[in-house]
Amino acid sequence: MSGDVAIILASVMGSPFQYRPPKFDAPPLSDAPDARFEPAPADGVLPETFYSTTNLPTYVKVQGQWRRPRLPRMDCVIVREQVRNDLVVTEPRKVPKGGLVAVGSAEDGSTGIYVHVEGFYGGRHSANEFGFMQTERPADYSHLAQLLGEEKHRGGRIVWVIGPALVHARARQDMIWFIRNGYVGALLGGNAVAVHDLEAAIFGTTLGMSSSGEGVEGGHALHMRAINAIRRVGSIHAAVERGLVKDGIMHALVTQHVPFVLAGSIRDDGPLPEVVTDTQLAQDAMRAHTTQATFAVFVATALHAIAVGNMLPAFVDGPGDDLRPLTTICVDQTEFVVTKLRDRGTHQAYGVVTNAQDFMHVLRFYVERWEQAQVPASVSR
Amino acid sequence: MSGDVAIILASVMGSPFQYRPPKFDAPPLSDAPDARFEPAPADGVLPETFYSTTNLPTYVKVQGQWRRPRLPRMDCVIVREQVRNDLVVTEPRKVPKGGLVAVGSAEDGSTGIYVHVEGFYGGRHSANEFGFMQTERPADYSHLAQLLGEEKHRGGRIVWVIGPALVHARARQDMIWFIRNGYVGALLGGNAVAVHDLEAAIFGTTLGMSSSGEGVEGGHALHMRAINAIRRVGSIHAAVERGLVKDGIMHALVTQHVPFVLAGSIRDDGPLPEVVTDTQLAQDAMRAHTTQATFAVFVATALHAIAVGNMLPAFVDGPGDDLRPLTTICVDQTEFVVTKLRDRGTHQAYGVVTNAQDFMHVLRFYVERWEQAQVPASVSR
Amino acid sequence: MSGDVAIILASVMGSPFQYRPPKFDAPPLSDAPDARFEPAPADGVLPETFYSTTNLPTYVKVQGQWRRPRLPRMDCVIVREQVRNDLVVTEPRKVPKGGLVAVGSAEDGSTGIYVHVEGFYGGRHSANEFGFMQTERPADYSHLAQLLGEEKHRGGRIVWVIGPALVHARARQDMIWFIRNGYVGALLGGNAVAVHDLEAAIFGTTLGMSSSGEGVEGGHALHMRAINAIRRVGSIHAAVERGLVKDGIMHALVTQHVPFVLAGSIRDDGPLPEVVTDTQLAQDAMRAHTTQATFAVFVATALHAIAVGNMLPAFVDGPGDDLRPLTTICVDQTEFVVTKLRDRGTHQAYGVVTNAQDFMHVLRFYVERWEQAQVPASVSR
Amino acid sequence: MSGDVAIILASVMGSPFQYRPPKFDAPPLSDAPDARFEPAPADGVLPETFYSTTNLPTYVKVQGQWRRPRLPRMDCVIVREQVRNDLVVTEPRKVPKGGLVAVGSAEDGSTGIYVHVEGFYGGRHSANEFGFMQTERPADYSHLAQLLGEEKHRGGRIVWVIGPALVHARARQDMIWFIRNGYVGALLGGNAVAVHDLEAAIFGTTLGMSSSGEGVEGGHALHMRAINAIRRVGSIHAAVERGLVKDGIMHALVTQHVPFVLAGSIRDDGPLPEVVTDTQLAQDAMRAHTTQATFAVFVATALHAIAVGNMLPAFVDGPGDDLRPLTTICVDQTEFVVTKLRDRGTHQAYGVVTNAQDFMHVLRFYVERWEQAQVPASVSR
Repeated sequence: MSGDVAIILASVMGSPFQYRPPKFDAPPLSDAPDARFEPAPADGVLPETFYSTTNLPTYVKVQGQWRRPRLPRMDCVIVREQVRNDLVVTEPRKVPKGGLVAVGSAEDGSTGIYVHVEGFYGGRHSANEFGFMQTERPADYSHLAQLLGEEKHRGGRIVWVIGPALVHARARQDMIWFIRNGYVGALLGGNAVAVHDLEAAIFGTTLGMSSSGEGVEGGHALHMRAINAIRRVGSIHAAVERGLVKDGIMHALVTQHVPFVLAGSIRDDGPLPEVVTDTQLAQDAMRAHTTQATFAVFVATALHAIAVGNMLPAFVDGPGDDLRPLTTICVDQTEFVVTKLRDRGTHQAYGVVTNAQDFMHVLRFYVERWEQAQVPASVSR
Repeated sequence: MSGDVAIILASVMGSPFQYRPPKFDAPPLSDAPDARFEPAPADGVLPETFYSTTNLPTYVKVQGQWRRPRLPRMDCVIVREQVRNDLVVTEPRKVPKGGLVAVGSAEDGSTGIYVHVEGFYGGRHSANEFGFMQTERPADYSHLAQLLGEEKHRGGRIVWVIGPALVHARARQDMIWFIRNGYVGALLGGNAVAVHDLEAAIFGTTLGMSSSGEGVEGGHALHMRAINAIRRVGSIHAAVERGLVKDGIMHALVTQHVPFVLAGSIRDDGPLPEVVTDTQLAQDAMRAHTTQATFAVFVATALHAIAVGNMLPAFVDGPGDDLRPLTTICVDQTEFVVTKLRDRGTHQAYGVVTNAQDFMHVLRFYVERWEQAQVPASVSR
Repeated sequence: MSGDVAIILASVMGSPFQYRPPKFDAPPLSDAPDARFEPAPADGVLPETFYSTTNLPTYVKVQGQWRRPRLPRMDCVIVREQVRNDLVVTEPRKVPKGGLVAVGSAEDGSTGIYVHVEGFYGGRHSANEFGFMQTERPADYSHLAQLLGEEKHRGGRIVWVIGPALVHARARQDMIWFIRNGYVGALLGGNAVAVHDLEAAIFGTTLGMSSSGEGVEGGHALHMRAINAIRRVGSIHAAVERGLVKDGIMHALVTQHVPFVLAGSIRDDGPLPEVVTDTQLAQDAMRAHTTQATFAVFVATALHAIAVGNMLPAFVDGPGDDLRPLTTICVDQTEFVVTKLRDRGTHQAYGVVTNAQDFMHVLRFYVERWEQAQVPASVSR
Repeated sequence: MSGDVAIILASVMGSPFQYRPPKFDAPPLSDAPDARFEPAPADGVLPETFYSTTNLPTYVKVQGQWRRPRLPRMDCVIVREQVRNDLVVTEPRKVPKGGLVAVGSAEDGSTGIYVHVEGFYGGRHSANEFGFMQTERPADYSHLAQLLGEEKHRGGRIVWVIGPALVHARARQDMIWFIRNGYVGALLGGNAVAVHDLEAAIFGTTLGMSSSGEGVEGGHALHMRAINAIRRVGSIHAAVERGLVKDGIMHALVTQHVPFVLAGSIRDDGPLPEVVTDTQLAQDAMRAHTTQATFAVFVATALHAIAVGNMLPAFVDGPGDDLRPLTTICVDQTEFVVTKLRDRGTHQAYGVVTNAQDFMHVLRFYVERWEQAQVPASVSR
């Protein structure tokens, strides 16, 4: 429930409601023409420009009089029964051949049909606004890819905040691709992200499963063995340098010199040597990156996404007045995290509700395509 | 993502963004005083009236000049470092004793602090609006109970739309209580609701489980046996009249003469004799009730809630101009159904995200308490 | 997807499948009688003891021969068409009066009907096991109340682990009741739990909302002001002792001398003075309680529930061989947390999927009732 | 909560628990050697083959005696303190250099460490089984692609059951690709699937949004106008033949002669002419396809998936004894649908929890790749 709707509901639920009828004796309503009606061409078939109803108080002008049709509901039509001089909201399938159906699409009275949102929901809203709200809007990957590509080429600093669900066979390769191709300015995460990745690098498993999802013998202890192996050599950096860790996300970060912060939590096993176990020091380490961020991508993490969301300004800071929004993409299996972010004030968060691994795969595909589309342009320069 | 936020994001994501700086040379900003700063009484302790930051573009007036503090983020304070003449957004825990902290709570510039929502999100929004949006608002059962109680006493027609998850031992008793006490004007549901209830009435189980959740021998076929038993006697009404069904929701509906519609679906086993298997006829049967509804309660059903939501006007229809909102309570384990309802235009839906059985139990408790509180009043009349 | 099912699916999805037909020439199948058929008493009405099908390979003995009925599916019946000597799985509604329907409920061949689970899913499973698995099992509050009540009276140590969603007007009162009535041996949580509770104690709001869910002016900064107020007096204990905090969960813990641990996280504002910001020290502080726990209740927290779940043994430890399970109740709005707990080995977790506040309210009601039911017994001793 | 776990919990929650200690005086435990301990090479670093603990009752043989280490928990190690002759379960980070840590990975006593699952959870379970259960198993698209590809090449009949969330710009193209490339033997859905697709074909929008997610003027009525346009020409087939509908899923089905069933529901607007409004007739039409299905894919639909799941046998029916599992892939944004399917007996359902559109995109990519990999093989034949 976001902003306005919450406000509306509070007023609906709360204080006494007082309906304010439309002002029919003032323009523009006083000047409105009668509504037009056209006959249905066949049983259950409507005239082409039929007016489709909403569930809000609606007035239709007939013979100079504004009347509310009976039996209101949405997604129906207004039928005028001449014999009984009746106006009834009717399901399209029930309209008989020749039945007179109101036509037009305006809802402001200009064609004799008026939807009275104002008196019902308060002054700020248009009928159109309440036609449809869209939570089902699909992610527009080509647009995300363009934003990401442009940010890289502008020299921005893209901060990624990721959770352990991202670190499985497929998405790991995609994350490595983004690191190697300059799309990661800093990576913020926790102990578990690195443990999963290092277990995969050392033992070829994640939480004891092979990349095809099969359990291996003794698998449940492998994350503990991975932690121990890193602790033995002293650090993740040392493990990469000595060849204990030969691939993976942490390997790519170290070899590409991309900074990372692993913030400690009470769920941590180990932890790994680079983990900042004090949460205040971890916040400081994270903020050193968020103050430089110009773009943020949160994937499959609630704790870290909200922590970073609290730190990020809604805009890219800079000298003078040349501010721009700090694009923040938040990917999670449910709407929970992005809702939380917005509740806490990160209104600029662009939510993508999907599986983290599928997101990474599709996004990479689109970014690769976007990059290919740039080539001729750069060549021709 | 609802209305306004969607609109904001669309603009953020879409067309080129152009930041419009505040108009400092016009009132009210041109007349604003310098911001006030007070010293922190101890390390990490703030002056009592400290100003708490947002993540939006913020300007502070210092020595007659409007400046944006560095390192913006939310839930922090603005510290003025006099030596370097610096303004920095700082975590409260990092403020040293004596550090100068901006104070005040206004964000409109009247005390020297200005949050520039307008230039960032467009003209309609106030800073306050973006302070917090509340999706975590807990259900206010005492208010729901009052609305329900008042509706009953006003002679309204409360339509319930319920799904099979409601029909388990505990909630079944609560639903019966609402039926017996005049809170149910009509009940709309599907085959499964009635099958579960009748299985419980005949065999004491639901989908083969006892009321304490234990499976019983051969339990998985008991819903089929319940259906067959009803089909044998010809109807649910006959089963109640002949004593085959001695308790439950369907029993209460029949004995209290509360009308019900069981609409068919492709998931139905059986179906029971009263089920309207043609979906258009079922819609007609349902609408005969929705056109008379003055209040709606949807519990644990997506298909039926959305179908009924599409049919219900947003307001209680009536003669003249005395319209009022048609209160619609939507209870489900997730936000999905209420979000769908709102997306499709049922903006008045009041969502309660909880377990259907716990909802029924707590709601009944509050309604009983509300009724008891009315007694003296009615007696004294 | 838990244990066995995962194993089954892995085998189904993975290596080449080889169906092993039943051994009809060995007992008990070789000795089985022919299946019995009875005529349907009316169109679409079955003989009372009809056999209800599953979706697994099924064999019916007819005239000494085991045959598989055609068109298999679940929740149907087996009809024998004598003219064509056909056996067909048929929807009950399509059975004509007089149609011959297989009867009986055994699936082991003893009455001529055999469901061959073994050859299909492997050796360990019975047909009955696959009849129905029940995830929809409703929470049995009376049983939970009994377990909790018995644990208290046995002198056990009940450890609660709670998240901030619990701390709203109603549930706060219920939590206080449990603390005051001896049901809380220790409370584990984070900074946010205490901040919400203290904001409510000091300002009467939670995240800036009043108890009825209305926003208050300047509300979004009140949690920061609450933190600052506590930091000013030095500790939560001091705030209670000096009367700054006069009610609430933290107040009840302090005045009832119930120990608590507030573990730090990177999401924390403040933090409050008692928060243990180093995550390793926080783990140590938590484990000092988990090693003494005899019962655990997790409400509305993922991070803390999983951290504590990792620390808890599956059993109540003690001298000698008198072990018993360490009952662990996990309450959350979704199945996510309890699934996570089980994935990580906390198999004893009893999941309740509901709203935290409704859970607390209903549980308290049942515990109060359980306590009242004990009174006569104790008196009579 | 599936099968076994439910059974375990029922026993834990229900009847009196009686712990059965291990039989130490019988083989193999009576013959077991002492456990081996090795010194930690550095503070917080373990000997390489350390034993990693579980949370279950565990016995370690020391000097010929089986003892339970104190302070049990999972993911820790067992340290022997020689001075006090103590065995303590210890976090790895707290083990000092030289501390004696139990080593080995067997849990059956053969190396002196025994985890007593049997006495705790009952006879059927091994310690290994409880090491980790994996719900987080990522979807193995290459395996799914192979299954689908092989089914097509074997001449199987792949039945798709889809919901309206699939019908948005991107996934629509992918669905068309599967239809055109022979991967769809029949398509089962409802009115909304076809309405969304036809609105896109006629107006270029879905529920009034353009393919990039922007609302268009009057968009909320476009689905009603699409329905009316089809009703005017009489059928979807006629609309394709006359060129009113020139692309999309319905167009591909009609032009590729792939049969489809659109089953009616009470949520339907219109409905479209081909919709079977009677739910019993719709079930019959669906079952005509399910009895021939050899593979099923359910995407983004609860009602239709469960209806079809109820109809499908768990196996591919055929003459003789050559049965094989009927692979059933169920894709949804949450685990709800696949859990429901399994609860109702569709145990063979392979769940993929993701966004429907991302699923379609990634699956198509893998199927295309699988097909390309087959080419040389077919050529060389």
